[in-house]
Amino acid sequence: MALRVGFVGLGIMGQPMAQNVAEGGYELTVFNRSSEKSKPLADAGATVAPTPKAVAEASDVIILMLAGPEAIDAVFEGPEGLMAGMRKGQILINMSTVSPQYSKQLAEKITSKSVVAIDAPVSGSRKPAEEGALVILAGGPKEQVTELEPLLMCMGKKVVYCGNVGQGSSMKMAVNLLLGTMAAGISEAVNLGQKCGLDTATMLETMLAGPMGCALFEFKKPMLIDDQFSAQFPLKHMTKDIRFALQTADDNGAMVPLGHAVFQLYRQSIGLGLSDMDFAAVKKVFERISD
Amino acid sequence: MALRVGFVGLGIMGQPMAQNVAEGGYELTVFNRSSEKSKPLADAGATVAPTPKAVAEASDVIILMLAGPEAIDAVFEGPEGLMAGMRKGQILINMSTVSPQYSKQLAEKITSKSVVAIDAPVSGSRKPAEEGALVILAGGPKEQVTELEPLLMCMGKKVVYCGNVGQGSSMKMAVNLLLGTMAAGISEAVNLGQKCGLDTATMLETMLAGPMGCALFEFKKPMLIDDQFSAQFPLKHMTKDIRFALQTADDNGAMVPLGHAVFQLYRQSIGLGLSDMDFAAVKKVFERISD
Amino acid sequence: MALRVGFVGLGIMGQPMAQNVAEGGYELTVFNRSSEKSKPLADAGATVAPTPKAVAEASDVIILMLAGPEAIDAVFEGPEGLMAGMRKGQILINMSTVSPQYSKQLAEKITSKSVVAIDAPVSGSRKPAEEGALVILAGGPKEQVTELEPLLMCMGKKVVYCGNVGQGSSMKMAVNLLLGTMAAGISEAVNLGQKCGLDTATMLETMLAGPMGCALFEFKKPMLIDDQFSAQFPLKHMTKDIRFALQTADDNGAMVPLGHAVFQLYRQSIGLGLSDMDFAAVKKVFERISD
Amino acid sequence: MALRVGFVGLGIMGQPMAQNVAEGGYELTVFNRSSEKSKPLADAGATVAPTPKAVAEASDVIILMLAGPEAIDAVFEGPEGLMAGMRKGQILINMSTVSPQYSKQLAEKITSKSVVAIDAPVSGSRKPAEEGALVILAGGPKEQVTELEPLLMCMGKKVVYCGNVGQGSSMKMAVNLLLGTMAAGISEAVNLGQKCGLDTATMLETMLAGPMGCALFEFKKPMLIDDQFSAQFPLKHMTKDIRFALQTADDNGAMVPLGHAVFQLYRQSIGLGLSDMDFAAVKKVFERISD
Repeated sequence: MALRVGFVGLGIMGQPMAQNVAEGGYELTVFNRSSEKSKPLADAGATVAPTPKAVAEASDVIILMLAGPEAIDAVFEGPEGLMAGMRKGQILINMSTVSPQYSKQLAEKITSKSVVAIDAPVSGSRKPAEEGALVILAGGPKEQVTELEPLLMCMGKKVVYCGNVGQGSSMKMAVNLLLGTMAAGISEAVNLGQKCGLDTATMLETMLAGPMGCALFEFKKPMLIDDQFSAQFPLKHMTKDIRFALQTADDNGAMVPLGHAVFQLYRQSIGLGLSDMDFAAVKKVFERISD
Repeated sequence: MALRVGFVGLGIMGQPMAQNVAEGGYELTVFNRSSEKSKPLADAGATVAPTPKAVAEASDVIILMLAGPEAIDAVFEGPEGLMAGMRKGQILINMSTVSPQYSKQLAEKITSKSVVAIDAPVSGSRKPAEEGALVILAGGPKEQVTELEPLLMCMGKKVVYCGNVGQGSSMKMAVNLLLGTMAAGISEAVNLGQKCGLDTATMLETMLAGPMGCALFEFKKPMLIDDQFSAQFPLKHMTKDIRFALQTADDNGAMVPLGHAVFQLYRQSIGLGLSDMDFAAVKKVFERISD
Repeated sequence: MALRVGFVGLGIMGQPMAQNVAEGGYELTVFNRSSEKSKPLADAGATVAPTPKAVAEASDVIILMLAGPEAIDAVFEGPEGLMAGMRKGQILINMSTVSPQYSKQLAEKITSKSVVAIDAPVSGSRKPAEEGALVILAGGPKEQVTELEPLLMCMGKKVVYCGNVGQGSSMKMAVNLLLGTMAAGISEAVNLGQKCGLDTATMLETMLAGPMGCALFEFKKPMLIDDQFSAQFPLKHMTKDIRFALQTADDNGAMVPLGHAVFQLYRQSIGLGLSDMDFAAVKKVFERISD
Repeated sequence: MALRVGFVGLGIMGQPMAQNVAEGGYELTVFNRSSEKSKPLADAGATVAPTPKAVAEASDVIILMLAGPEAIDAVFEGPEGLMAGMRKGQILINMSTVSPQYSKQLAEKITSKSVVAIDAPVSGSRKPAEEGALVILAGGPKEQVTELEPLLMCMGKKVVYCGNVGQGSSMKMAVNLLLGTMAAGISEAVNLGQKCGLDTATMLETMLAGPMGCALFEFKKPMLIDDQFSAQFPLKHMTKDIRFALQTADDNGAMVPLGHAVFQLYRQSIGLGLSDMDFAAVKKVFERISD
């Protein structure tokens, strides 16, 4: 018998991910705080639940794709929250990006209801979400992760098993710390070259032609050349991810001197009003702080 | 009539580069401080000069590939130095990595002798040097750089014209600052994951599978997994390059907050005795400074 | 009629502070999680309450002096917690060091009970606490802070009115960020001098003889000379304070590049097992990271 | 018989220092590149020499007080330079701030002339220079330093013997690194408080009332309150000193993570046009980089 899947959080990422679950043939119940975002899912055959609790009651597996800890807490607690509707034997897959510590706390919380927790944040942004081509970083009991692979593979092209619950989030931290560092790093290097009088396009071609050539820099190249930063992955989300990564480093005694410098740069970008631009807009901070 | 080429500096990079010039059919005169390194070139048909001055006297174009400013000064000055043998109409191509400021000072110095200066540092290490597959970052009068392209293409797969003399060095600074930042960045991210209990190989596969996947990280992957750092590009040279990049940033008013953090990490690696290992050995510093 | 005062938290700071309140002639009720710490207060005439709730019920003004947010939450919530015993018209003075944000959240929470919140962290450690010579940094309604000055002046030599609730904590953040930076700063400078071969005592005398001479450096001078760091103010608490200061900076959009570097140094000290030493032991990290 | 003293460099510091030497009864010969600055010294009875060489010829002891290495090199070399006039048995006291490495190179250079080198940079700015109240940090042969104490004490209130030649400069590096860190540190802390809504004067009074209270912060207090930064010690000189301190740290394998962050802040101040203001104007950078 097919799994009944609940999906909470239909934002820029959650929407196409839920769509892909619906297209995968699962019986889907969705909830989103602002209900107009549920429309496209209803059109795709999903049931729109009036409350998180109702999602929990109607599902075997509940997927969360929310902005962060506060948003998760908001759908979890209270008389109409997820917790109120959960029951023994269910599985909760949190695909939102949170710190490993929060993942573990969430898991502990639902243990009282005998619900199994999996943390499965994703690597990739809107476009791979639409194409079901995300990389899914999963932590939790290996047996359940394996069983759920068909469901996860509706949304992704690859499931990386990372270890116990919380380890999916740990992997996300490591990956996005590097992502944020690389975008800040190329911004700093390009800005240095520009201050020396080098041509931006020539610089980027040179960097891409060598061993550092990668899809990330290919994506950012036109942004840096045209000084236009339409969001692939919004800077405010990267800032949040680096904040979580620093917290994770603090929790685990890992030193992150670059991470701290990188965080200051993204945080400063927020102050410059660049929150909704692509995270490569961190380049603007270098221009501002250099003579 | 074929150009007569002088080559000074037959170290780990200079040797194969000079070999490729010899194989290109140029009449080659070489000099190296410790003369046993000249042997293979002599076998390849090059004349071994007794002094830098003799190289200058025997050549139309003089190529330098030395460890840095001090080594260049050492072959330049004095009664048996290059300057003493230079004459009007010659071209000096400095392929050593130095700061743009030093490049410009060197150019000014030889202007008195009516010698044209080109700075042409390379991107790539021993292996591409052997294969004639370096990327050559050239600054100087465009006409002369163009004329010399056949010579340069013996050593490289691509010549990037960067602008006036000094701009080749500027490009090298921007490129290697990014290189150093990326190697430190992946070390920091992998160390964070390790402290969280993640498997190193799984982490690197995940990072390489996404948009950050690049040849650089492919090269460093086995080093990081096996904790073995045989030098492709020695850490001491990367440290020197970042030092020059910080100086260049200071000279040009470019802010490099990551560069400063990165420099401290490489400089600390030197203190740990990692000078002659690959620059990815900067990873060891993260292990040491983390709990 | 005399105010009835409740005091929760009888640790290294709370104990002498509560003693000074008792000696000030106030009717005192105390609570501490490990009850043996209440003994000296009982000897001084205080009533020892069995629960936080009982403290609240017996008092007009409740003072908290606890290790941090978690400890405060632990005495606040639950059927035997402070909240359960609070009533309209009471005043809560939180003298624990927390972030301004937490101070404001705590204030909001007790507004539902019509209890007035004052945050009043202290500047100074064990010795000034014993001597009633703390500097008290108070935020909250001006009228109430003024009314309570006689009570506060039992514990301190000065009450600085900082503004609305939360501003006492903000002041503490600014003060301790500077304190942490100065201790790390003198450690870095002394370590630099030592690496250059200078005599430690000569260095400290020189620094103290000039415009930087201050009581802080006088206190740390024998520690740095003798390489002995018995705690005046434990390093783990300074680490916590800097962590809160970074959070506060993040919440308010203030850039703290030094604070981030300083935090890494203290956090690393924890990893080296220096938690319970004086915060000047951060010097050991410089020795470790330098050649 | 009285020593004949030569003094080269009559800038903001050198002028009053030379005046104090003249008033000390020494036979004084002076040189300054822009000769109008020699006037007041001529009025005080000094001989104005036409060239550095002439200063050397007329003196037993030569004092330098110049802006940095370039300025020293400029008066040293060439047919009319100091070197050309030096002879066996003289003593050179370099009171300019330079790196220890430069001090040692200078000493080596004049060894060929059998001239003894002492490096004796000063702690203190214009006002203590006028009052003969500088702290003089001396490196060199102990015997000669002791013999010259009467001369040095015309200019200073204290001579600190630091060790061999170069160690005076090392001490200056350590002292000014701390000075620069403290001014940046209080700027960061005050800016944090301001972003939290605290009153600037209240903050500074609180900081000064505690163990961090020192003359430095007393001097900077009105600057920070009034947002007016007339130079006591110009920011460009502090920037130069921190640059030398980082170089010294690099030369000696001392890690200076705060120093790097501090340098970026001062360097950025230069970019904002604050070069000639007091170094406490680094505060403006925090305002600029914070939201």
